[in-house]
Amino acid sequence: MIQENDRVLLSGQKREFFVRACDKEFSTDKGILNLSDLIGLNSGDLIYTHLQKPFKVIVPRPVDYFSYAKRTGAPMLPKDIGTVIAYTGMNKKDTVLDAGTGSGVAAIFFGGIAKMVVTYEKRPEFAEVCRKNIDDAGLDNVKVRAEDVLLSDGEYDIVHLDMQIEKEHVEHAHKLLKNGGYLATYTPFLEQTFNVMDAAKPVFSEVVCHELIGRELSRTERGTRPSTRVCHTGYITVCRK
Amino acid sequence: MIQENDRVLLSGQKREFFVRACDKEFSTDKGILNLSDLIGLNSGDLIYTHLQKPFKVIVPRPVDYFSYAKRTGAPMLPKDIGTVIAYTGMNKKDTVLDAGTGSGVAAIFFGGIAKMVVTYEKRPEFAEVCRKNIDDAGLDNVKVRAEDVLLSDGEYDIVHLDMQIEKEHVEHAHKLLKNGGYLATYTPFLEQTFNVMDAAKPVFSEVVCHELIGRELSRTERGTRPSTRVCHTGYITVCRK
Amino acid sequence: MIQENDRVLLSGQKREFFVRACDKEFSTDKGILNLSDLIGLNSGDLIYTHLQKPFKVIVPRPVDYFSYAKRTGAPMLPKDIGTVIAYTGMNKKDTVLDAGTGSGVAAIFFGGIAKMVVTYEKRPEFAEVCRKNIDDAGLDNVKVRAEDVLLSDGEYDIVHLDMQIEKEHVEHAHKLLKNGGYLATYTPFLEQTFNVMDAAKPVFSEVVCHELIGRELSRTERGTRPSTRVCHTGYITVCRK
Amino acid sequence: MIQENDRVLLSGQKREFFVRACDKEFSTDKGILNLSDLIGLNSGDLIYTHLQKPFKVIVPRPVDYFSYAKRTGAPMLPKDIGTVIAYTGMNKKDTVLDAGTGSGVAAIFFGGIAKMVVTYEKRPEFAEVCRKNIDDAGLDNVKVRAEDVLLSDGEYDIVHLDMQIEKEHVEHAHKLLKNGGYLATYTPFLEQTFNVMDAAKPVFSEVVCHELIGRELSRTERGTRPSTRVCHTGYITVCRK
Repeated sequence: MIQENDRVLLSGQKREFFVRACDKEFSTDKGILNLSDLIGLNSGDLIYTHLQKPFKVIVPRPVDYFSYAKRTGAPMLPKDIGTVIAYTGMNKKDTVLDAGTGSGVAAIFFGGIAKMVVTYEKRPEFAEVCRKNIDDAGLDNVKVRAEDVLLSDGEYDIVHLDMQIEKEHVEHAHKLLKNGGYLATYTPFLEQTFNVMDAAKPVFSEVVCHELIGRELSRTERGTRPSTRVCHTGYITVCRK
Repeated sequence: MIQENDRVLLSGQKREFFVRACDKEFSTDKGILNLSDLIGLNSGDLIYTHLQKPFKVIVPRPVDYFSYAKRTGAPMLPKDIGTVIAYTGMNKKDTVLDAGTGSGVAAIFFGGIAKMVVTYEKRPEFAEVCRKNIDDAGLDNVKVRAEDVLLSDGEYDIVHLDMQIEKEHVEHAHKLLKNGGYLATYTPFLEQTFNVMDAAKPVFSEVVCHELIGRELSRTERGTRPSTRVCHTGYITVCRK
Repeated sequence: MIQENDRVLLSGQKREFFVRACDKEFSTDKGILNLSDLIGLNSGDLIYTHLQKPFKVIVPRPVDYFSYAKRTGAPMLPKDIGTVIAYTGMNKKDTVLDAGTGSGVAAIFFGGIAKMVVTYEKRPEFAEVCRKNIDDAGLDNVKVRAEDVLLSDGEYDIVHLDMQIEKEHVEHAHKLLKNGGYLATYTPFLEQTFNVMDAAKPVFSEVVCHELIGRELSRTERGTRPSTRVCHTGYITVCRK
Repeated sequence: MIQENDRVLLSGQKREFFVRACDKEFSTDKGILNLSDLIGLNSGDLIYTHLQKPFKVIVPRPVDYFSYAKRTGAPMLPKDIGTVIAYTGMNKKDTVLDAGTGSGVAAIFFGGIAKMVVTYEKRPEFAEVCRKNIDDAGLDNVKVRAEDVLLSDGEYDIVHLDMQIEKEHVEHAHKLLKNGGYLATYTPFLEQTFNVMDAAKPVFSEVVCHELIGRELSRTERGTRPSTRVCHTGYITVCRK
């Protein structure tokens, strides 16, 4: 049941809105919505504008935070987050350290899966944005630390780094990991990727670097073809202790 | 702590073995291991052969079941499983219906993440293999149904189909889903992919088909380059209700 | 030696201009050029603006017509033209039939290689643009026919189609080809590609469909990575008689 | 008309043979062919085995030398040769220097297009294989030099290097080129590619590095899909003087 201050996705009339259940009005070109009406509703219920146009009420999922959360820069794409989750086998027993939080999109995905996530973001203003996004996502198992990841300690199943990575970060990650656990790094440039691979090879038992070229298939009346744009995003290096 | 009958990954001496903690011996070219010694150990402990060669004891992760579980055919690759997880935003609050279980690798990944997974496999001999693999993985929130997925009912956050998909399967999936929930299908051939997209477009609010071309980066003394083999695996179509 | 009315590429001052050796002035932000000064010069000579800024004189190559020729629509990319040339083994002994000329970019590449090219473009206004571009390129072995390719006859080493292709076009191409010769088709959509493959399989001895995903490698001070945009252009089907 | 000693491709009975018109017999599982019967025939004629099974007589094209020429190592793929041809705009007016000849496959493609090709291969045994292949291809405009390309001089429209490339090779190529001409290099590894790009940037006016990921589309009764294997071959760097 939706409570006051919860984030809600409204879908209908070929539109989508990401709102908050609160004591405010929300104007659309299909009429005005009273957002306090959302409180007490459930996912799938309908809400109507003053013009009697219905919108479907949806409790947001992690993918919606990718689309709608406040951003501090370009977040990792779901395809890359999915690669980290799959090749580390992230699951609900895991304790995950994440660093280079940014707007927290990856941390939100991880928080929905793992037992606990600690995410390090040393730029305080980014850490602030991230805290709000994680709060919006209703995750109480994700802790944001506004400090350098090299100051972290503890024992983790998975360490995920999306930041400028030096040799010392790879070695620090190795120390933090349980045996059989994984370091996964995201690096947009080849030089950084080489650095990670070279730093990881002597200390990890397995190092595999993945590149994923993702395309959407476009299907219209004219015909079907891969979308004409493909994003290179980066390299995901997965290292097992 | 490892208990009798648990699956255990042994890593060391540049080798990896997937064994069971039980009352048996296990011969390696580095000496004989007494598998009952595993009982009571923890992930990260060492076990020694009769030649005093140590192996690291690792509690398996979902990725290990991809490598070592008994197979009924070619399972989905982690990159494709990761795409399903990420684009549906699968998380621990979710109830997931999976069909076309095969050896159960996708169900094992999903079971580690979701609250509950029901997986349909109508070929009884495959359902049997799958049950054993899921049992090995220690998952008690994954139920295997040896029947046609069209017989399923209930309400799900996510439906995942990896099988011959007809229009009726897409429409049945739509009925099973909550509002805001996702159908994700895996189809190796374009014709099937077109069928899924065409069946989904009239009933779902959003239909996106992804193709992921995955490559590994090979880094040796000779130099760095993409691995010379890339697998086309299939198309992942993600449809939101 | 450059003659009156020849096309000339001017390169220098971090700029590039595609001009004509003629009795006119050409204004640049680096000063005015007297284009009649080009007559009698050779590739590699310098020409100066009235501000004494030099530009290198270059006799254009086929790639320059890709960049600068007047367009009637999106021409085939050089990577796709190169695929046609390589998989057909196009060479100076060949007689080539080209259809769906458009602005004539492919015909200009082929004309630089083959003994003779006949190109069919049934839209008269496109045929007109194409004639001018081919004339500019100084090719006297390329004939433009403003009519339907199904009206063509003769004997060819290579037939190249970049147009809406029906079964009858594939069969007509087969009739026009010498034994051992090649049909190469360019189709942006999968449905058309299927049609071509299905029409070709019964009549040609070999049918191979290529997709080329091309990326540029971007190398800057920040690092090296594949460019973030990739174009899907189309499928090249190569059929040997 | 086929002359004594010419290479001939025989196609039929779902088989393909690459033979020589000469005073010998050639045994197939469909009967014996008398190869001297080929002399005087034309492309497209038929030749019969002693069992009256016909084979189509085809004068080989450059692509056939890719398939059948004697190899000294892995030759460049047609897709990469096509990329060089297209992005340099190679045509019949061009004088081309090629180095790292190997078995001469690229030189055979270039020789069919350009006015003249000089190809450098410093390993004498490879130069010998290459000479025979070029001779077989009937090209009298391709000269093989069994020496280091750094000893070359003259003026070229295009320089193509498929070898271990050092900075001095890039600079030497620049000296050999006409203004507006192109250096194209083929490098399988990223490190070499970086070296070429770094050496070229200060001396060439334009440096673009291409990667082509090529896939074949497989279409069978089961359905249509990209072939499951993709080759990374290498990077083509194209530099304009």
